[in-house]
Amino acid sequence: MRQTLAREVTNLLERGRDRQLRLAVTGLSRAGKTAFLTSLVNQLRHAGLEARLDLMACAREGRLLGARRVAQQDLAVPRFPYDEAMAALDETPPRWPDPTRGISELRLQIRYRPGRHGLLGMVAADSATLTLDLFDYPGEWLLDLPLLEHDFLSWSERQQAALTPARRELAAEWLEAVADLTPDAAADEAELAAIAERYAATLRAAREAGFADLQPGRFLLPGDLAGAPVLQFFPLPGIGEADRQALEALPEDSVYHTLSRRFAHYQQHVVKPFYREHFRRFDRQIVLVDVLGALNAGPERFEDLSRALATLMRSFHYGKRSLVSRLFAPRIDRLAIAATKADHVTPEQHTNLVTLLEALLAEPIQDLRFADIPVKALSLASIRATQSREVERQGRRFPALRGTTQAGEEALLFPGEVPAQIPEADFWQRQGFTFDHFRPLPRDARGDALPHIRLDAALDWLIGDKLA
Amino acid sequence: MRQTLAREVTNLLERGRDRQLRLAVTGLSRAGKTAFLTSLVNQLRHAGLEARLDLMACAREGRLLGARRVAQQDLAVPRFPYDEAMAALDETPPRWPDPTRGISELRLQIRYRPGRHGLLGMVAADSATLTLDLFDYPGEWLLDLPLLEHDFLSWSERQQAALTPARRELAAEWLEAVADLTPDAAADEAELAAIAERYAATLRAAREAGFADLQPGRFLLPGDLAGAPVLQFFPLPGIGEADRQALEALPEDSVYHTLSRRFAHYQQHVVKPFYREHFRRFDRQIVLVDVLGALNAGPERFEDLSRALATLMRSFHYGKRSLVSRLFAPRIDRLAIAATKADHVTPEQHTNLVTLLEALLAEPIQDLRFADIPVKALSLASIRATQSREVERQGRRFPALRGTTQAGEEALLFPGEVPAQIPEADFWQRQGFTFDHFRPLPRDARGDALPHIRLDAALDWLIGDKLA
Repeated sequence: MRQTLAREVTNLLERGRDRQLRLAVTGLSRAGKTAFLTSLVNQLRHAGLEARLDLMACAREGRLLGARRVAQQDLAVPRFPYDEAMAALDETPPRWPDPTRGISELRLQIRYRPGRHGLLGMVAADSATLTLDLFDYPGEWLLDLPLLEHDFLSWSERQQAALTPARRELAAEWLEAVADLTPDAAADEAELAAIAERYAATLRAAREAGFADLQPGRFLLPGDLAGAPVLQFFPLPGIGEADRQALEALPEDSVYHTLSRRFAHYQQHVVKPFYREHFRRFDRQIVLVDVLGALNAGPERFEDLSRALATLMRSFHYGKRSLVSRLFAPRIDRLAIAATKADHVTPEQHTNLVTLLEALLAEPIQDLRFADIPVKALSLASIRATQSREVERQGRRFPALRGTTQAGEEALLFPGEVPAQIPEADFWQRQGFTFDHFRPLPRDARGDALPHIRLDAALDWLIGDKLA
Repeated sequence: MRQTLAREVTNLLERGRDRQLRLAVTGLSRAGKTAFLTSLVNQLRHAGLEARLDLMACAREGRLLGARRVAQQDLAVPRFPYDEAMAALDETPPRWPDPTRGISELRLQIRYRPGRHGLLGMVAADSATLTLDLFDYPGEWLLDLPLLEHDFLSWSERQQAALTPARRELAAEWLEAVADLTPDAAADEAELAAIAERYAATLRAAREAGFADLQPGRFLLPGDLAGAPVLQFFPLPGIGEADRQALEALPEDSVYHTLSRRFAHYQQHVVKPFYREHFRRFDRQIVLVDVLGALNAGPERFEDLSRALATLMRSFHYGKRSLVSRLFAPRIDRLAIAATKADHVTPEQHTNLVTLLEALLAEPIQDLRFADIPVKALSLASIRATQSREVERQGRRFPALRGTTQAGEEALLFPGEVPAQIPEADFWQRQGFTFDHFRPLPRDARGDALPHIRLDAALDWLIGDKLA
């Protein structure tokens, strides 16, 4: 206990002198968190040597000297598997690193020379150190924040409303299993477990199908809680506020109260601890979004992503009366939102990619600006998998991409145009957009920095001011 | 918090009236924990009907009415997967249930009629209820208790001493990797992680080879801690008490201090919480031992099992000055020790099986008796996989077993004689003992109780007094 306190005080002092920064990376699954963090560490380690970081002021000015990994502070949080990720990229053929499955952490010490300061514009001679704590956690965990505003009854009602036709189809087996369950029946442990497992299967199937607005988030990555009653609840279809009094009067061992207790336990012992122990200590945050993937998957999935992002972004609504501020007093003071996999479209589409991202997140971005939290939207490719080319056809030149598809075929193609705004019905009818997934490019030499697009711009925004 | 307190008070009251009992089942991996717990639940659910429980007084007297599963109290502990286990046994061909991987829990309500009481020998008319909380946890976790007596230096010394020739051979890769690591070097995160992974691989290989005395136990079942620094330490060969002063004087970021910190964190945040939150609340305990498996595996493995059991049993040494009593004030008041898989030898060998078990655990049993904790040794088969037969050869009759081997072959065989005492060298030279693994017997009808040997004797000892 005393040790923890001493550590906290040291941390506070370090941060007070701008010597320590806690940067968190999140995104829904397959948004590209592992690739982003791998490349970020890789670029900083190669800073001053092979890394191309011209969009980072301190690298451009030759003041960024390098970085090394040091021991992290929280011994119970898995270390971000950087070496395993690099090994995957160095296989023949190269492959994308395995995704991480929960929170992970990595600490870097960055050496740099402070820039010109003060009235005389003197260059400080000595080098300085910034300790950068990196965190990576599933965006799905943030989807559980709104769950804290609900009790079991209102949450059940909300989940019913979220069942669009396609989601309803994926939930068919669960809906059938739950149809005969009445709130007043005596709870049968085994039956509830079986129905909960079907509900979890529904969520998994929805994720497979490209849906993103899935609650409770921990059902998708249960870890050590697999099989525990706290992960064995589900919304009860057909109940609503109108029945509240009658439901509350049911016996303690009824289905209704049993599921309510589990829901409350999930709020207290699964959702809140993440915010309390991790989230409220982050200084900076980047949210990664696979806009292109959603564009590929069709209108219902795109709509779903939009809803999921609106939910996810609520964790960054720092208005004084917002849920997250009231409960956890977080302190994130700068945010980046990035459309990843920009290398999967031709370069002249990148501007549209950013405007589309901004359109997708229009409301959350307005809220953040109103709350005076600096936020920047950008597009990037953490690890570039394609090369940009031009092809000539009938005397005209067209932009194209060259890369190796996941199936192992060399391809030269034009994936399509990215709409600059939320697509209208006619865009989906034209089906103007299909892109392949590409393998990572083989690296020329193992020592090389990873190729990227605008990762340096993201870095400049997220940590550049601390390297001034 | 208030809710927890209220729950604790209710529990205390229930227990005061002998209405609630917390029974824990443990054993090293493959000792048969899942089969035992599955059969126990199955027998009690069939009590009064098909189950054969003649060695249980209250069943013999017709007072045991039945049992049903009810909701467990700790929502964050996985439920024991009884239905999944029964489903495995009902497959064609039947298969053994999947092993559990951590702690799990299941609550039964047992209905019984109290027996004759008081001076008049009146039979109480009403039925009564005993709430039985069942817990299942890996015996490997108990092997970590002695770790609490050590600091990193003395633990390192102790682990070196445990490297017998065969263990040393299995550890060859790790020993090579750790050979160049000096305690005073600056800790390199990635290097320590790589060496720790090799150490964990060594432990896994040793377990595969039949060894049981393996520390730290959680390296074998890391769960959500996989990849966390708290599971990335290992003993440093070649250091010992003689160097203590010099080692302590090393810099904080040295290999020595980094590993020491992780070792201490493991003690505080991995080992102790299990004892504090679970172990000290158990009322009764059964320890399952696969004596026959060790007998099969040869002298070094048998010796290792003996050492592991001595370590494991230390958690039940309730002398006032014992480690576990000082730290956790546990309250287990009755203990059973059972040699499992008794159906894998012919019935006339069962007596020897018990005396061998008692010989193997002679010292722990003496300690328990000295501390006045009732302990009983027995042999049993939780789910019988063979039928006992006689074969005639040259006019004489021999006992034999009939069953289906794991390879699917019908077999009729005599597995050998179980020594009544710790085997001497000549037993191993004669290699007098080899037994096959058998598949579970197909059940005649799905509703049937599982066939067993003396599971009822274990039950009578463990809970019989509460059903009086």
